[in-house]
Amino acid sequence: MVMTNGYEQNENEKVLDILNLNQLEADAKKIIPTGGFGYIVSGSEDEWTLQANRKAFQHRQIVPKALSNIEDPQTDTTVFGLDLKTPIMMAPAAAQGLAHAKGEVDTAKGVAKAGGLMAQSTYSSTSIADTAAGGEGAPQFFQLYMSKDWDFNRSLLDEAKKAGVKAIILTVDATVGGYREADIINHFQFPIPMANLIKFSEGDGEGKGISEIYASAAQKIGPDDVKRIIDYTDLPVIVKGIESPEDALYAIGAGAAGIYVSNHGGRQLNGGPASFDVLESVTKAVNHQVPVIFDSGVRRGSDVFKAIALGADLVGIGRPAIYGLALGGADGVFSVFEHLNNELKIVMQLAGTKTIDDIKHAELLHIQY
Amino acid sequence: MVMTNGYEQNENEKVLDILNLNQLEADAKKIIPTGGFGYIVSGSEDEWTLQANRKAFQHRQIVPKALSNIEDPQTDTTVFGLDLKTPIMMAPAAAQGLAHAKGEVDTAKGVAKAGGLMAQSTYSSTSIADTAAGGEGAPQFFQLYMSKDWDFNRSLLDEAKKAGVKAIILTVDATVGGYREADIINHFQFPIPMANLIKFSEGDGEGKGISEIYASAAQKIGPDDVKRIIDYTDLPVIVKGIESPEDALYAIGAGAAGIYVSNHGGRQLNGGPASFDVLESVTKAVNHQVPVIFDSGVRRGSDVFKAIALGADLVGIGRPAIYGLALGGADGVFSVFEHLNNELKIVMQLAGTKTIDDIKHAELLHIQY
Amino acid sequence: MVMTNGYEQNENEKVLDILNLNQLEADAKKIIPTGGFGYIVSGSEDEWTLQANRKAFQHRQIVPKALSNIEDPQTDTTVFGLDLKTPIMMAPAAAQGLAHAKGEVDTAKGVAKAGGLMAQSTYSSTSIADTAAGGEGAPQFFQLYMSKDWDFNRSLLDEAKKAGVKAIILTVDATVGGYREADIINHFQFPIPMANLIKFSEGDGEGKGISEIYASAAQKIGPDDVKRIIDYTDLPVIVKGIESPEDALYAIGAGAAGIYVSNHGGRQLNGGPASFDVLESVTKAVNHQVPVIFDSGVRRGSDVFKAIALGADLVGIGRPAIYGLALGGADGVFSVFEHLNNELKIVMQLAGTKTIDDIKHAELLHIQY
Amino acid sequence: MVMTNGYEQNENEKVLDILNLNQLEADAKKIIPTGGFGYIVSGSEDEWTLQANRKAFQHRQIVPKALSNIEDPQTDTTVFGLDLKTPIMMAPAAAQGLAHAKGEVDTAKGVAKAGGLMAQSTYSSTSIADTAAGGEGAPQFFQLYMSKDWDFNRSLLDEAKKAGVKAIILTVDATVGGYREADIINHFQFPIPMANLIKFSEGDGEGKGISEIYASAAQKIGPDDVKRIIDYTDLPVIVKGIESPEDALYAIGAGAAGIYVSNHGGRQLNGGPASFDVLESVTKAVNHQVPVIFDSGVRRGSDVFKAIALGADLVGIGRPAIYGLALGGADGVFSVFEHLNNELKIVMQLAGTKTIDDIKHAELLHIQY
Repeated sequence: MVMTNGYEQNENEKVLDILNLNQLEADAKKIIPTGGFGYIVSGSEDEWTLQANRKAFQHRQIVPKALSNIEDPQTDTTVFGLDLKTPIMMAPAAAQGLAHAKGEVDTAKGVAKAGGLMAQSTYSSTSIADTAAGGEGAPQFFQLYMSKDWDFNRSLLDEAKKAGVKAIILTVDATVGGYREADIINHFQFPIPMANLIKFSEGDGEGKGISEIYASAAQKIGPDDVKRIIDYTDLPVIVKGIESPEDALYAIGAGAAGIYVSNHGGRQLNGGPASFDVLESVTKAVNHQVPVIFDSGVRRGSDVFKAIALGADLVGIGRPAIYGLALGGADGVFSVFEHLNNELKIVMQLAGTKTIDDIKHAELLHIQY
Repeated sequence: MVMTNGYEQNENEKVLDILNLNQLEADAKKIIPTGGFGYIVSGSEDEWTLQANRKAFQHRQIVPKALSNIEDPQTDTTVFGLDLKTPIMMAPAAAQGLAHAKGEVDTAKGVAKAGGLMAQSTYSSTSIADTAAGGEGAPQFFQLYMSKDWDFNRSLLDEAKKAGVKAIILTVDATVGGYREADIINHFQFPIPMANLIKFSEGDGEGKGISEIYASAAQKIGPDDVKRIIDYTDLPVIVKGIESPEDALYAIGAGAAGIYVSNHGGRQLNGGPASFDVLESVTKAVNHQVPVIFDSGVRRGSDVFKAIALGADLVGIGRPAIYGLALGGADGVFSVFEHLNNELKIVMQLAGTKTIDDIKHAELLHIQY
Repeated sequence: MVMTNGYEQNENEKVLDILNLNQLEADAKKIIPTGGFGYIVSGSEDEWTLQANRKAFQHRQIVPKALSNIEDPQTDTTVFGLDLKTPIMMAPAAAQGLAHAKGEVDTAKGVAKAGGLMAQSTYSSTSIADTAAGGEGAPQFFQLYMSKDWDFNRSLLDEAKKAGVKAIILTVDATVGGYREADIINHFQFPIPMANLIKFSEGDGEGKGISEIYASAAQKIGPDDVKRIIDYTDLPVIVKGIESPEDALYAIGAGAAGIYVSNHGGRQLNGGPASFDVLESVTKAVNHQVPVIFDSGVRRGSDVFKAIALGADLVGIGRPAIYGLALGGADGVFSVFEHLNNELKIVMQLAGTKTIDDIKHAELLHIQY
Repeated sequence: MVMTNGYEQNENEKVLDILNLNQLEADAKKIIPTGGFGYIVSGSEDEWTLQANRKAFQHRQIVPKALSNIEDPQTDTTVFGLDLKTPIMMAPAAAQGLAHAKGEVDTAKGVAKAGGLMAQSTYSSTSIADTAAGGEGAPQFFQLYMSKDWDFNRSLLDEAKKAGVKAIILTVDATVGGYREADIINHFQFPIPMANLIKFSEGDGEGKGISEIYASAAQKIGPDDVKRIIDYTDLPVIVKGIESPEDALYAIGAGAAGIYVSNHGGRQLNGGPASFDVLESVTKAVNHQVPVIFDSGVRRGSDVFKAIALGADLVGIGRPAIYGLALGGADGVFSVFEHLNNELKIVMQLAGTKTIDDIKHAELLHIQY
């Protein structure tokens, strides 16, 4: 246990015996301090959209296919020119030092071990370079919250490029923080610094609330801003926080190299649809022009399968991996990825799909329960 | 604390620290006497429609729009020629002395401070003139329950005109009181007088049940009655309690200056639809000929947004504001309006809508959960 | 309290202070012995259809109509040539001596006082003549479970005619008893005789289970049997237990004077639809050729309204009236009818319908909650 | 009570007094050891599909038909050239020694007494010959999990033929075991040997987990494998685990003599539809070319009726019969079949269907509750 500014960071390092990803939350709650846990687990307002994110997977059903003549399904996939062992990626989640003393460095290590893709957040507890080093050569993306300060944006993009990340994820759905009641109830302020914010004129984030943090970010974002980022960096830029065909087309029009469908895990606009329920409308609009990443609510191998069947190329997880980090550090994150990927393999076999590409051609039913 | 006819009226005056509007109910319950609270909180019969009023907002979802190039959303709006800081208005709710010693005078003050629109009820605890004075020049509407006694109607309309209210809201959905079981269980009778009823031959309402009060009102209302009111007053007349295209067209045909969609907060016809679920059918019928006001079930900024997206120009709240009044007097009411308007602003930003007019062009989804 | 064969029959006679009909069940449970109460309250199997009977009313919503220019709604109606003060009728329910020592005699008295229509069951605790006398000249129908013994059928039809009943209700949906688990759990056997069964060779029903009772009834019923009944009696014959357009047409083809839509209060076929959910399909098929009676699940004035709006001419209640009987004898039954009719009047006023005929032209919405 | 490798096998032999099949689970839980009970009762992952299997029967409703002129409904049926007293059959369920010392021998005896069809599992606790002998001449099918070892497959097929079974059920939906969390929580390994596995080079199953057992089975199954089985045996081959029209057509194309619609009781692919909800799509594709068997979730006579109405020729039960076995041995199994068949007869009478063939022409409604 490490005390950082009065916040207890645990230092667990162990492989986890995982029954399922849902079960991790209760265990993680015991070891992450209340404020930090509340920040991680909660959504905005009355969390209707957060809950809808889970329920939505029940809106579609996988057709079991028994005579497909396949065995030993393979989860490896190539996206954005990267060879990955699994379509499951680490979503860019902020401030992982809240869960573990090693923060994103351990997450990167665990994800690398699982053969997945790591995405760093602008608001990471550890720096771009340190996190990148944690992954030991495994591919990483860097997520950018666009700042009002373009020097800062450029600085981060340069640093990301220098650290060897393979793409930029530009988050556009957080021009203001969602109304997160848990943080208000807990009087939550970030107890630990965000390494990348040191260059912000406003400081490193420590001792600030999430709304103050977001206040430094650009509130006004349009296609031109996306284009400006794209023009500056020679890394591919994926636009994250897309929930409509319109925004997807704007982003592609601005030169986006990928579309990231997400409602920020139900942490931003409450009263909006489940992310899974809009996925197909976006992938149809994108129409294979660029890869599509999906996150928000994924907990089961069947969820991953369903998202891919509706057109996602990569499927991100956030909270479950952070719980794995809290409970077991790098090995905990690895355990989470490995478990979820194993669930996915069972589903693939029973659905008669040998490859990730086969999943893309799988039919889902739409029966109402 | 003031004792009025054995009824304890509190006198709180303070700004409230509001987490959300739903949370206010439990706090208000502690300080409003049982009978008064039961009268305020309850609906008719088994409250199916009251509950449907809340559930209905889940029938539609707001599409997050991230690339709309907007910031700093503005909630000011101009309706009925009035410049307002917020589309949220105070619905005309009866007998606010049940919640607070200052009654509607404090409500008017709080609403004025928030830049909203105040509507007085015929059955207000305080008089038209006193309530109007409370608002300190901010716009107010006067709600009329049409009496069988036309002298009384004329007298109220004259008084309202004299007090400077900007429009008349003619309520037509209460020709008989809904079957409200809480009032029966509590043997509820109005413990405090209704100032405007002094001119009624039957007295000032004190010591009467709601059904006796309504018995003084006209039971038979048709387009001709609406027209008669309109012909008498030179104030614009908005017809309240409209839940169908047919009634909306009747009202407009009779010369209504506005349509007020409401099911009386689930207090009248139980077994009818949620007010939100019929809103669009009415606004389509109205087709922008006159402004549309909506109430019944609004608790969240996202609810306000959704109602406007379906065609409402103003969105009323009742119970939450009365709870704010009970807990904090004028400042409590102000806090409620400010909080809800802040929630609305967050939703506007995340939905890519800079103005109230933008909301009117926002798309809602219709996914079943 | 009267002890009959070890079964405690209460003798309450009083006007009831009714909040709503649902509330009566708990009160009645306290004074009706377990076996008798279980027989009355329960449905078949896991009671899915019984519960669906209640939920189904939520499938349709009444449109509030405020500008219909009506007041003082009237519930009187003329059906089968009979002038009634209310469209609410007493459904033919067996063995009301289980609830009260006076049984159907008191029920008839209460219904008569309310101006409603009384239907006697073949399996009444009191005889046709006694029950008829209880109604003091108010109209009654006699329900016939067709026996395998045609002498018995003829005898009952003759007796009914002699007693002055106005029509025969021929029940056709009980050729075998539904699988009622409560009766099995309670080892329920009828503790008190059924007056009309004295002429059965098998005895008067006392000490028998419901399946034994039904065993005396004809299991095989087709249009020809209906016709045979019709040919024998010169009373109009209404066929009860119709849940499909096909059966309605069969019955009309055989000369039925009315169609009675009912699923026997969820006591017969479990896994079938709610009775309310098939009502419209039947009334459309009947197409005003003969009157339609509806029962199963009615507890609220809004339920009565909805059933009439879908084409019912009369709406039956069973269990609530029996609970009223248990709690207050004839006056208790009267109180139940009066309360429900008052709820209906409120709904009529708020829905803008002055007459029962107006309700028939009222629109219902079909919003899913 | 018999102790087998430390596992307590009960030896109850008695006719059961059954209220309904759902009630059996709680009783059986008391006498089957935890690990064995968990193996029997559970489904895969979070059991969403297992629960959907039950809920799905509520998606369709049986139309009561009262004027069909029928009595004394008959459940006998002829399928696959076999005369059966009931369309309810014993699904091929593994390792019934977990429930009772006599295992499948007693099950066969009970099913034979009920006039039903017995299906043995490859993973039976008792051998093909012993189980067949238990049925005392009543028809049995043998279910084959195709092994990677074709000598073994041929050996089982030969043995089945020799034992006089009437058909082979080839299960194709278990090329990998579903992710069954109960077995993991209970560290479940088969405590008792599987008689047919003695010829497996890997041993008799004892002390193995279900995933190890399945590992011996072929993972890769296509139409050619089905054909190879069909070509080898001269018994009719029914393909089990079909949930889509595509797989049904593959199987028929390969020469299948029957299609068995099942999702393995919710034990394999979680996130897939309820088996009942895909039944009609399969029977329509099969189009009467071969008989269709259905299982997964059947607990009520109305469930059996609904499955037949959607095109099933035989309807299997698994868990309830095993609970009957645990509670009463052969007589317990008989009691379960008899009870369910009696429920079916009541439903048949009330739905106006005299024969199993009549059920096939019965209409089901599709109302949403």
